[in-house]
Amino acid sequence: MTADALVIFTPSGKRGRFALGTPVLTAARQLGVDLDSVCGGRGICSKCQITPSYGDFPKHGVTVAEGALSDWNAVEERYRQKRGLAAGRRLGCQATVQGNIVIDVPPESQVHKQVIRKSASDRVIEMNPATRLYYVEVAEPDMHEPTGDFERLKAALAREWAIGDVTAPLPVLARLQPALRKGGWAATVALHKGNHDDGHRILDLWPGFWEGRLYGLAIDLGSTTIAAHLTDLRNGSVAASAGVMNPQIRFGEDLMSRVSYAMMNPGGDAEMTAVVREAIGRLAQELATEAGIEARQIVEAVFVCNPVMHHLLLGIDPVELGQAPFALATSSALDLSLAEMGIAGVNPAARAYILPCIAGHVGADAAAVALSESPQTSDDLVLVVDVGTNAEILLGNRDRVLACSSPTGPAFEGAQISSGQRAAPGAIERVEIDPATKEPRFRVIGSDLWSDDPGFAEATATTGITGICGSGIIEAVAEMRMAGLLDPSGLIGNPEQTGTARCLPDGRTFSYMLHDGRADGGPLILVTQGDIRAIQLAKSALYAGARLLMDEIGTDTVDRVVLAGAFGAHISPKHAMVLGMIPDAPLDKVTSAGNAAGTGARIALCDVTARARIEADVAKIIKIETAIEPRFQEHFVAANAIPHATADFPHLRAVATLPDVAFNTGGGEGRARRRRRD
Amino acid sequence: MTADALVIFTPSGKRGRFALGTPVLTAARQLGVDLDSVCGGRGICSKCQITPSYGDFPKHGVTVAEGALSDWNAVEERYRQKRGLAAGRRLGCQATVQGNIVIDVPPESQVHKQVIRKSASDRVIEMNPATRLYYVEVAEPDMHEPTGDFERLKAALAREWAIGDVTAPLPVLARLQPALRKGGWAATVALHKGNHDDGHRILDLWPGFWEGRLYGLAIDLGSTTIAAHLTDLRNGSVAASAGVMNPQIRFGEDLMSRVSYAMMNPGGDAEMTAVVREAIGRLAQELATEAGIEARQIVEAVFVCNPVMHHLLLGIDPVELGQAPFALATSSALDLSLAEMGIAGVNPAARAYILPCIAGHVGADAAAVALSESPQTSDDLVLVVDVGTNAEILLGNRDRVLACSSPTGPAFEGAQISSGQRAAPGAIERVEIDPATKEPRFRVIGSDLWSDDPGFAEATATTGITGICGSGIIEAVAEMRMAGLLDPSGLIGNPEQTGTARCLPDGRTFSYMLHDGRADGGPLILVTQGDIRAIQLAKSALYAGARLLMDEIGTDTVDRVVLAGAFGAHISPKHAMVLGMIPDAPLDKVTSAGNAAGTGARIALCDVTARARIEADVAKIIKIETAIEPRFQEHFVAANAIPHATADFPHLRAVATLPDVAFNTGGGEGRARRRRRD
Repeated sequence: MTADALVIFTPSGKRGRFALGTPVLTAARQLGVDLDSVCGGRGICSKCQITPSYGDFPKHGVTVAEGALSDWNAVEERYRQKRGLAAGRRLGCQATVQGNIVIDVPPESQVHKQVIRKSASDRVIEMNPATRLYYVEVAEPDMHEPTGDFERLKAALAREWAIGDVTAPLPVLARLQPALRKGGWAATVALHKGNHDDGHRILDLWPGFWEGRLYGLAIDLGSTTIAAHLTDLRNGSVAASAGVMNPQIRFGEDLMSRVSYAMMNPGGDAEMTAVVREAIGRLAQELATEAGIEARQIVEAVFVCNPVMHHLLLGIDPVELGQAPFALATSSALDLSLAEMGIAGVNPAARAYILPCIAGHVGADAAAVALSESPQTSDDLVLVVDVGTNAEILLGNRDRVLACSSPTGPAFEGAQISSGQRAAPGAIERVEIDPATKEPRFRVIGSDLWSDDPGFAEATATTGITGICGSGIIEAVAEMRMAGLLDPSGLIGNPEQTGTARCLPDGRTFSYMLHDGRADGGPLILVTQGDIRAIQLAKSALYAGARLLMDEIGTDTVDRVVLAGAFGAHISPKHAMVLGMIPDAPLDKVTSAGNAAGTGARIALCDVTARARIEADVAKIIKIETAIEPRFQEHFVAANAIPHATADFPHLRAVATLPDVAFNTGGGEGRARRRRRD
Repeated sequence: MTADALVIFTPSGKRGRFALGTPVLTAARQLGVDLDSVCGGRGICSKCQITPSYGDFPKHGVTVAEGALSDWNAVEERYRQKRGLAAGRRLGCQATVQGNIVIDVPPESQVHKQVIRKSASDRVIEMNPATRLYYVEVAEPDMHEPTGDFERLKAALAREWAIGDVTAPLPVLARLQPALRKGGWAATVALHKGNHDDGHRILDLWPGFWEGRLYGLAIDLGSTTIAAHLTDLRNGSVAASAGVMNPQIRFGEDLMSRVSYAMMNPGGDAEMTAVVREAIGRLAQELATEAGIEARQIVEAVFVCNPVMHHLLLGIDPVELGQAPFALATSSALDLSLAEMGIAGVNPAARAYILPCIAGHVGADAAAVALSESPQTSDDLVLVVDVGTNAEILLGNRDRVLACSSPTGPAFEGAQISSGQRAAPGAIERVEIDPATKEPRFRVIGSDLWSDDPGFAEATATTGITGICGSGIIEAVAEMRMAGLLDPSGLIGNPEQTGTARCLPDGRTFSYMLHDGRADGGPLILVTQGDIRAIQLAKSALYAGARLLMDEIGTDTVDRVVLAGAFGAHISPKHAMVLGMIPDAPLDKVTSAGNAAGTGARIALCDVTARARIEADVAKIIKIETAIEPRFQEHFVAANAIPHATADFPHLRAVATLPDVAFNTGGGEGRARRRRRD
């Protein structure tokens, strides 16, 4: 009988026989067990903590006796005294196998899995960050064999970690000599290896063993807001999140007005580039302050954005994106330094990864949605809609994926709506209208109470009731249709037709009064005929885009629908279907993915292998340009009614009743429209 | 008989048979004939001009008839009208083979050879610059197959030039779209490919076919002066050269005083880095102005320098180089951007290549000398001495090469000499002393006349006679020894001992009066006892370094000696041997290589393959650290006499007579020295 023993790791269940005296860390590595180590098994970093289990394990067919691990040793004792070690814990690099043993790897010693908690579903991200810390012991200089400190550091990385092809920027080289001497010829280096084949790059280094952590920014650069998650690159956890308004708004509310600004004002693109870079730098600083870390610890950023934001971020004039053939300056993913991009507030050597663009109208944000929602690996046919000022639409399954962009305009975000506002406390976000009484009830952001619940007034006293946000206007319009206040053409009925005094005359048309706060000094919140028309245009554009892709694939139905976008998270699927925003599908097959682009950015930040995957996937996506497809216009016009063709919505009938009303009696808007045509 | 013909190229003599109709350029490429082309054979660039020869060619065994090439075509005619084409010239891409033909490739159509004219020998540099121009025609954007302009440019480079792995910095990406549209979907790109494996990088681009040229800087960054050659990267010719004082001089005359300045003044290294970078940027601008080119056309620079200059250039504190073990921060060759180095006055994307350092005291300048003088490929044993403030010494042959540095101090450059000055008009550079009369004659920089030639006073009226430069002091000391004014210990005799009133008392010692210009308001130029001691220290250090390497290799003689360094070009081999600066060798085997480090820089600039070669060679050089070798001290002390051991200099006796005098009679310096010892 050879001197070996059975080692079983939990929770993985991986097992194997090892010679007595084998360190637990070595056994874990040989079995591919996810057990962390930064210091390379020197008892310095304590990342490899494990908990041995003793007793009978009938499930594993093994009994573990005392003495199955080597005795507590001096290294462990020193570590315990210096930093503390929980009872029962051992250092995997110090404890050696002395008998059959069951070893538990606690969650904090596992690095390669990270759960992102989302509104709808949890998601597991593999942790393979591009930048990692490595502890190395470097040979001292020798006059007889003169080599540079950097060359000896490279030799140490090759010897201890099998890492070759290492470079360092000048500022790191400049800090190398004092760091190595201060650290007693040891250092902790932050090494970056992107998915493009450009070797390992030392981004920073610290004397000796450094206890700190590295962070990355997942940045969703939208036309309206810039959202950033400061992410711990060790375990993927979000240390701080923040969003700011995109300061480019002062140059134009929507993308095309910003492109126009660049066209009309020489240097206008550079102005917009400067303000957005500055804002990102400030955001980084704020996040670092909030999380209590140094700017230096932020070593990476991943960006997702639409093509116009993409070009303005990179300092490229977006003028070509404003006219056919909508040529991108570059569509590939980019691996850059943040300093080269003019972004401060981070480590001076920090790297940026920018996801690839799919087409001139379908940007890195859509690529991020594809990374997050993965239609390209779906068995069933999935429609993914990222609802924003432009809607990016993906349709497909593992056979093929199509993409397009549809110019929905900002109505879904509450803009161009009479009482519209951004989603903020005080905004009406949910609406119900009683089909009998035509009376509304609603909820505002900041309170869980409905407006007819007791205590609602008190609960909303501080925020007030300030307007309607995007999800609120969608529900309001859909509820108005279900309550018989709107006819299929989108016309609001008058008080006689609808039987409610809430339908107020408003010029030649009628508005529906959702809330009258004037007695308390608040606003009168109406849904006007103009609001209805704005929503109709937006939803027709969205539907026409989806329909175009369905035509291309040759289908009239999809298996499921995913609503993405920060706003998509708040859309009620039922109301979206009543409006005809999306193709018909069983209601339980319409789900929200939350900010899928942001999730995609986090995935690319935490898992460098995901970058190569999405680059390959994006290359295979089939792009459809809505601007040159005549059928897009046909679908757009045909989709104006609410809903546009009841026959297309078999599942809708199961969840909603749509009264058969018609208000176009020659008065109001009907007359006005005819007059404008004259 | 197949329809082909014999094509013979001159001057190469390369020949082959080609199908009728084959373009001459194609034939040249298939035969490996050095015939240039930038536009890829489109008749745009005219770089492939050739001259067909007609008649009988008995040497080649061929008769060339009219009609051996295709008729003058429309492309050639258009080119001739637009740009002119010399009589008899054809475009190699347009003219096709129609019969047996002899084709001459004129020098300007050959790109791969360049002769550097040096004082002693011509040198051929292969032209393989890291940065070249490529003309490409790029596909227009297509909405149905959306890709970025950059991706289509990359596809064109791959298709037309078989070049892959292309990247571009953001400012180039930002200029891409307007350039392609202005150039009618064609552009000329400057592509850089270093010898490290980092792909092709677009440094700049121009709309359509660009007629301009690219330049590089070969920079010899010395402690005292910065010399730069602006070099045409197409043919290696030098468009302009300039030198400026190293502005770091105000922080310390020699290297160690600059290291001390950095040690004593926090931020002192950064100050020195800033001034040298600024000076290099200004130098680049001046050279561009002088050559009449734009700063943008300077796309590369190669740097050679000693380790302290190397670190200060890179922004690395040189403090470790001032103390054992003299550890370099990095010793490898570096491939950087000049912008990253903070150097302006060049293309914003320009690249820098910095040769590897050999050891803490033996820098990139010594590597450049090795590249230029190539002891590593020499059959005979060659000693290469780069004489400057520190002397870098290489000894070896193809079997092995050893290197060391010796702290000669600045005496050889005229510093620490009572009447010493830098080599500039007015400085005494050549000296002869009549052994009978003890009277001197000399020449000054700026005139070819000797001081006893008629017209000398007029010829030197504007410059005056201002002092003695390095080569002048060496000759003066050697001539004093040969004239019996100095004894072997280096002591100057008194007037009675030497028989000349030019030996003037000077405190307790004597000086030799070389020139008295006081009557005309000029200086009194003496060679003092202190000057002799300074030269003795310097030459002992130089000899001891060479001797140490000879010990290591186990030899008492070398086959030849190469004196390098700007100063080395002016040292008289005979006087150097009289002084005992260098080991004995036949006088005709002591040659000057001029500024060999600068030549090495030019080679690395013009031929990227030379970079890989010298990096490999440097890795094999055996480094000897003089500071820790006890034998260095022994050799240094033993080498004090002039010459130190006549027996070691068999060749010297053939060229010089050294009087057997001894002046140490207990007076003067001898007494003073004894007193100091008390």
